[in-house]
Amino acid sequence: MSGIVTAGADLFAQALTDQAVPVTRVDWQPPMPGTADDLIAVAADPLRTDANEKAAAAMLAVQATLVDVAPASEVLGLERGQFLHAGPPIEWERASGPLRGALMGAAALEGLVADPEEAAGLFGAGDLSLEPCHHHGTVGPMAGVVSPSMWMFVLEDQASGRRTYCSLNEGLGKVLRYGAYSPDVLERLRWMSSTLGPLLATAVQRVGPVDVTGILAQMLQMGDEAHNRNRAGTLMLLRDLAPALVETAVESGFDAGFNNREVAQALSFIGGNDHFFLNLAMPACKLALDAARDIPGSTMVVAMARNGTDFGIQVSGTGDEWFTGPAQLADGLFLGDYGPEDANPDIGDSAITETAGIGGFAMATAPAIVRFVGGTVPDALATTRRMHEITLTENSRWAIPVLDFAGTPTGIDVTAVCRTGILPQINTGMAGKQAGVGQVGAGLVTPPAEIFPKALAALAQQSATRLPGTERTVAP
Amino acid sequence: MSGIVTAGADLFAQALTDQAVPVTRVDWQPPMPGTADDLIAVAADPLRTDANEKAAAAMLAVQATLVDVAPASEVLGLERGQFLHAGPPIEWERASGPLRGALMGAAALEGLVADPEEAAGLFGAGDLSLEPCHHHGTVGPMAGVVSPSMWMFVLEDQASGRRTYCSLNEGLGKVLRYGAYSPDVLERLRWMSSTLGPLLATAVQRVGPVDVTGILAQMLQMGDEAHNRNRAGTLMLLRDLAPALVETAVESGFDAGFNNREVAQALSFIGGNDHFFLNLAMPACKLALDAARDIPGSTMVVAMARNGTDFGIQVSGTGDEWFTGPAQLADGLFLGDYGPEDANPDIGDSAITETAGIGGFAMATAPAIVRFVGGTVPDALATTRRMHEITLTENSRWAIPVLDFAGTPTGIDVTAVCRTGILPQINTGMAGKQAGVGQVGAGLVTPPAEIFPKALAALAQQSATRLPGTERTVAP
Repeated sequence: MSGIVTAGADLFAQALTDQAVPVTRVDWQPPMPGTADDLIAVAADPLRTDANEKAAAAMLAVQATLVDVAPASEVLGLERGQFLHAGPPIEWERASGPLRGALMGAAALEGLVADPEEAAGLFGAGDLSLEPCHHHGTVGPMAGVVSPSMWMFVLEDQASGRRTYCSLNEGLGKVLRYGAYSPDVLERLRWMSSTLGPLLATAVQRVGPVDVTGILAQMLQMGDEAHNRNRAGTLMLLRDLAPALVETAVESGFDAGFNNREVAQALSFIGGNDHFFLNLAMPACKLALDAARDIPGSTMVVAMARNGTDFGIQVSGTGDEWFTGPAQLADGLFLGDYGPEDANPDIGDSAITETAGIGGFAMATAPAIVRFVGGTVPDALATTRRMHEITLTENSRWAIPVLDFAGTPTGIDVTAVCRTGILPQINTGMAGKQAGVGQVGAGLVTPPAEIFPKALAALAQQSATRLPGTERTVAP
Repeated sequence: MSGIVTAGADLFAQALTDQAVPVTRVDWQPPMPGTADDLIAVAADPLRTDANEKAAAAMLAVQATLVDVAPASEVLGLERGQFLHAGPPIEWERASGPLRGALMGAAALEGLVADPEEAAGLFGAGDLSLEPCHHHGTVGPMAGVVSPSMWMFVLEDQASGRRTYCSLNEGLGKVLRYGAYSPDVLERLRWMSSTLGPLLATAVQRVGPVDVTGILAQMLQMGDEAHNRNRAGTLMLLRDLAPALVETAVESGFDAGFNNREVAQALSFIGGNDHFFLNLAMPACKLALDAARDIPGSTMVVAMARNGTDFGIQVSGTGDEWFTGPAQLADGLFLGDYGPEDANPDIGDSAITETAGIGGFAMATAPAIVRFVGGTVPDALATTRRMHEITLTENSRWAIPVLDFAGTPTGIDVTAVCRTGILPQINTGMAGKQAGVGQVGAGLVTPPAEIFPKALAALAQQSATRLPGTERTVAP
C-alpha cells in the first residue's frame, strides 16, 4: 500500500499523521461514475431501510455449529461425474489454470481417469458437470473443487435448521485447491477421505455440536482475521476434538477400527496446518449470510466469490443473480522465486469471510497478516476503519480488542460502495496461473469496481416497480 | 485506573487526549525521595554501563526449552519434610493465610499429617523446612508451594546447560496455590502426580525439547501477555504434545501402561485450563534472568517475588540479597461475592514474567486482560509505553504487533525506577486472605516503592568501593 485514505476527521487520521504516514482526508467523494440516478432511485425504495435492517439482523442472529463430517456424495448428493467449483458459474473453456488443475486432479481422485492430464478432454467435451459451490449451500477456498468422495464439514444453524458445507483443508503449498494435482496431492486427499474424515466424524458425533461462531469470536481476540490467518481457531478446534478423537480409538465398539497411530497422525495433520479452521470459518460465514438472502429491497451483499476468471457478487434483494467482472491480481508477497507474472487472478469462495465482516474487514485485529503481505500496522487499523464506511452494521459478537472492542464492520451495502467508491478489502492466497503449480503467494485484492454499479442498476430497476407514479419496468 | 501518566510528547499522548482520557504529560519528575545522592554514586560506577549491557544481552540470549517432567524429589532433591514457597524467605509466624493453607495442604499430600489442619502445629514448631523456590532454581505461582511428590517442568537453556523448574498448573478457583486444601484439591494433586506428570514426561521425551521461548513469541501475537492470560500458549503446548501423548499409549513397550481414557483425561485437563502454560512461561523467564545474575555493577532487577507478606527484589549487581517491603493489595475485580476485604496482599513468583518484560509489561498485546481487571484499551497501551521508561532494552524476539512490532520493554533498571518514580506494573491473581479459601479475584498491582531505594543504596555502596579517591566502605 502506498498511502491511506480516511473518511472524516478522527483519532486515527491524527495518529497516522503523527507517524508520518501519507494521509488523504476525504470528507466526501463523488459516487462511482454513472451511478447517480440509480442511487437516487434505490434511496427512494420504500422497502430499503427495513429490508436492510432485517437482512443485517438475520445475519447476526445465526449461530453456526459443526454438527457432522460426511462425504459430499452423501450430504450434497453429488454423483459420479459431478463437480463443484468456487465463484460464479463458468465453463471449462473460460476456466483459469488453477481451476482446471484442481478439476483434473479431482477427476483422477474419483477414478474417472488414470492420469489427471486425460481429464481435460472430458471436461472440454462437456462430459462432466460443473456447478458453483454456492448453488449447493457450499463454499470452497481457492479453486474450491468438490467431488463426490471428498468429506465435508456440515454446519448448522440450530434455530433454523439451515445447513452449509465445506471440504476439509489440505494445508498449504502443493495442494488441489491451488491447482496442483501431482500424485502426492492425490495421495493426501485419499488419506483425508479414508482416515481424517471418518475420524473427525466420530469425534464430532461424540463431542456434540462445536460452536464455530463462538470460536470465531475468540479467534478475533487472538490475532486471527479468519481468512489468511486461522492459527488460534485451528488450535481451539484441536483442543475441542482431541479428547474425543482419543476416546473413539479405544472403544471396542468402534467399527472403523482406527488405531492410536492414525489418531496421532490426524492430530499432527490438523496441528501442523494453521489454515485448517478456514474451512469452518467460511461455511459459518455463508450460513450467516444465507439467512439474509432474498429480502426484497435489501441492498446487502450476501456473497462475494471468484472462479479465477470472474469475480461475482450476489445481493439480498436480487436473489440468485450474479453480478460479475474480471477477477483482479492480488498485490502482495510471493513464495520462493515466484513473481507477479506467475500469479493467477483472484480465485475462491473465501471472500465469504469479508462478506460477513471478517478477513480483510477485521484486519485491525491481525496486524501480522498485513505485515506478511507487505503493509504496516496503521494500514491494518485503517482498513477496518474504512470498511465501516461501506457496511450496514457492526457485529458486536465479533469484537476487535485494539479498537476498544468495536464490532467488525459487517454487511456490505451496494449503495454505500457506489456512493463512496470504497471497495471491499479482501485478504487472499495467490494460486499459480498454470494448472499444477499450486500456491505462489498471498496478498490483498479488491473486487472489480464495475460489479457494484451493475448490482445497483438491478436494485434500481426493482425499486422502480415499487415507487408510486413510476412506470413499472417489470410486469405486475 | 483513574488516569494515565505519559512521559514525553508522543503519538500515544495525543491519541489519548483525542479520546478524552485524562492525561498528565510528564517530561520530567523528581527522583524518589532520598535517592539523589545514591543515584549520583551509582551513575559514577565505572562498571555500570558495560555491566548492564552484559546483563541484558545474557538475558536475551537464553533459549528456554522444556526438556523433562519429573518429581521434585528427583530433580530438586527435595526430601520428606522439605517445602519450597514463593517470594523472599519467610517463617511460618509471618506467613499469610494462603501460604499457610498451601503448606498445610502440601503436608497432607506428602502424608505428614492425615488432616491439613494438623500441619499448622508442625510448621509452627519448626519441624518442617521452608525455603524460597528461587533458592532452588524454581518459581511457583501464588503460594508457590512445592513438595517432594509434585511433578515439575524442567526447562533448560541448551547453550549453557542452565536449568529452572516449576510445578504443573492445577487450574483456577479452589486450588492449592491459592491456599485451598480441601479433599478435592488434594485429590487433583494426586492425579497430577500419578497420571498427568508421567504422561507429560513420556510425551516430552518422545517429542524432544519444546521451544518455550518460541511459543512465548507466538503467544504475544495472539493476545496473551503470559501472566494473567496464557490461552494461546496452552493451546500451542497441547498441539505440540498431543500426538506424542497418543502415541505413547499405544506402544506395547510403554511401561506405565496408560490407556486412552487417561490420555483423553490429560488432554481435557490441559485444554480446559487456559493458565496451564503459565507454569512454563515463569521458569522460561527465570532461566533468562538467571543468566543475568551476579554481574558486578549491573543495576538490573533479576527477580521480583512475593510471599504474601513481603515483596522482594534481587538485583544482578548485589547477588542473592533480597530487598523487601510490604506486599500490596491488588486493584481489580473480584469473583462472585468476594470483595477487597477478602483479598490477601500480593503473592507469588509469577512477577518473574514482568521482570523479564512480559505480563504487565506486555499489556498492550492483551487488552482483554486490562478490560477484565477494570481498565481500558488505552490503559493497556499506555502501560507498555510507560514500562519503556524504566527498562534497559527491548526484547525484539517478543514483539507487540499493535505497537508496530516493537519489542517488549525488558530489564528493569533500579536507577531508572528511582529516577522516575515509575513502578513496575504487575498483573496478578488475588488469593483469599484466609487459608483454605482459594482465588477471590484478579487485578493490577505494583511493588512497594521503598524496595528500589533500598537496592539503590546497596548498589551505591558497592559503587563507592570502585571509585578512585573514594573511601572504601568494604574491606579490600
